[in-house]
Amino acid sequence: MRDDSAALTQSLVISIDAMGGDHGPSVVIPAVARALAEAPTQVCFLLHGDEALLAPRVAQHAGAAGRVIIRHAEKVIGMDEKPAQALRRGKGSSMWNAVESVRAGEAAAAVSAGNTGALMAISKLILRMSADLERPALVVGVPTPRGTTTFLDVGANVDCDAERLVEFAIMGEAYHRAAYGKARPTVALLNVGSEEMKGHQEVREANRVLREGGFELDYRGFVEGDDITRGGIDVVVTDGFTGNVALKAMEGVGRFVVGELRGALSSGPLALAGALLARSALGRFREKMNPPPAAPLLGLNGLVLKVHGGATGRDFAQALRVAVDLAQSGFAGEIERNMRRLPAALAETGPTAADGAH
Amino acid sequence: MRDDSAALTQSLVISIDAMGGDHGPSVVIPAVARALAEAPTQVCFLLHGDEALLAPRVAQHAGAAGRVIIRHAEKVIGMDEKPAQALRRGKGSSMWNAVESVRAGEAAAAVSAGNTGALMAISKLILRMSADLERPALVVGVPTPRGTTTFLDVGANVDCDAERLVEFAIMGEAYHRAAYGKARPTVALLNVGSEEMKGHQEVREANRVLREGGFELDYRGFVEGDDITRGGIDVVVTDGFTGNVALKAMEGVGRFVVGELRGALSSGPLALAGALLARSALGRFREKMNPPPAAPLLGLNGLVLKVHGGATGRDFAQALRVAVDLAQSGFAGEIERNMRRLPAALAETGPTAADGAH
Repeated sequence: MRDDSAALTQSLVISIDAMGGDHGPSVVIPAVARALAEAPTQVCFLLHGDEALLAPRVAQHAGAAGRVIIRHAEKVIGMDEKPAQALRRGKGSSMWNAVESVRAGEAAAAVSAGNTGALMAISKLILRMSADLERPALVVGVPTPRGTTTFLDVGANVDCDAERLVEFAIMGEAYHRAAYGKARPTVALLNVGSEEMKGHQEVREANRVLREGGFELDYRGFVEGDDITRGGIDVVVTDGFTGNVALKAMEGVGRFVVGELRGALSSGPLALAGALLARSALGRFREKMNPPPAAPLLGLNGLVLKVHGGATGRDFAQALRVAVDLAQSGFAGEIERNMRRLPAALAETGPTAADGAH
Repeated sequence: MRDDSAALTQSLVISIDAMGGDHGPSVVIPAVARALAEAPTQVCFLLHGDEALLAPRVAQHAGAAGRVIIRHAEKVIGMDEKPAQALRRGKGSSMWNAVESVRAGEAAAAVSAGNTGALMAISKLILRMSADLERPALVVGVPTPRGTTTFLDVGANVDCDAERLVEFAIMGEAYHRAAYGKARPTVALLNVGSEEMKGHQEVREANRVLREGGFELDYRGFVEGDDITRGGIDVVVTDGFTGNVALKAMEGVGRFVVGELRGALSSGPLALAGALLARSALGRFREKMNPPPAAPLLGLNGLVLKVHGGATGRDFAQALRVAVDLAQSGFAGEIERNMRRLPAALAETGPTAADGAH
């Protein structure tokens, strides 16, 4: 078994579940090679997985020498395994070991395209939650005409009280700053209207706490569903049920649109000729519509990024770039600082705060 | 004041708030003329609004003689008025009188492009809820590659327990049958996954009641956000918070896509030439992406349809066609029949049913 642990000490190390996702090493290794060519030279990749499978593929890339380390793992977590099952039998798997490298301080971030539920459960068990946070939040970047909206929670927390929504606002804002370099991102709560009295108890209470709690946030109140893709607000916060449904609904419209467009553009000789002429413009359009490649699990004592299971080498390489950027930023510390204000902010907002907070 | 109430007795009458919406009579009158040309001759339209404004416009259409009746109304409900305000001062307005015609048995349905909140409040006050239903549900048709998904509630009920979700399933199924002529529509609950244990308490409890309650429904369990536009399920049911956010998120993606597409297709000389050639195909595409023109308020003792405020004459005419079709169908009776099973179904499913039902 080959190892170069000495190389890790002076480097920024990204730990990778090399077996995860629909395509495993056949996507991960080319992505690593691509990321190596672009990342600063102190960035190293620690690959967890079947060494016999990984070593010959890594050897094909000259740039990998001294910057890619393979750590053998016996097991792989299946894409269909239940989280509880993954926790029981996951020890020693490529996913488990990738996350364990972060806990041990060997790596600054872990990246996996494997089973989402298993990755969340394993990450929570190994890294534990940061500050007083209860569960990780799943965050995605949604494309807009002006850039990217940070949208959370997209499915980690089905039941959310006001306190949870405030935590998401804090985590999402710090993440947006770190991921997109914006000094003071704007934050809003998703609701069915922009007036103060709209929405259910939890969202109204979270609105009060965010307005009155003295957080270091540029909080803008309520926004509606179409604001997620409008680009007027940087961070849009909701519970994991609504966020998951909205994200998938938007992905569904994207797929529907591409299908309809294909139909419309091939429904006659002139239309087809038009489509051929417009092909490269449409290619750029489709690229922008692609789902974002990496979703960090926020709220853990350590950085874990989930890459979507069907990711291409290009997607995975982009996720590695995001991991490097986030690992170099201090966003975990910023979350911690705002989280310390939360108990006081909840207490200050009067008797209704107590209802929303538990 | 002109009136031909005798003409109403042997006809199918649709009552119209002729002053509602962003454009009022300038959209409504051409839509009525268009609908007259297509509807069976026994269909008549009863227009409520400013007679001095409406009469000369109606007189321009030869086909209107004997089939369009103008009933003068002094007042108009503003698009920005709060529901409570609309209830206080709405009596005698074109919207109020349009709904009142349904209550009085003069008209089989009322159609308005006015203020949604005001229309719901006024309809509930005048018509009252049917059976044991608590609040109207707002339903829309969402385009899919295979037809239309009936999606509800899209904003009338922010807090929904299991009983409410079951009611939506019953109302939505009967509506889909009436609106699209499908003998046995499939019905599903929106959730964050398809497994039985996914989601919050209310959606799991509603799932149990729908499975075990002996309703005349082809109930298929849980679906996810992207199923709304997939076309595999006819009726997708959710609470008004999630439904409103998801609908607006989908509309936002639609707008984003059209904007991006315009950009992509004009970003170079060849792309522009391509777009010109493909123009008519893209026109058909955009048409399919348009939001549905009419959303019935389900659950009232009488049929009321809300048309979106910015509707064109073509949209409004289509809404009138939908109103005629629904008025001729027996969907209200079908809702009533299934609703009678609800109390027993809730009682049968054991102790957890009681939690979900209140």
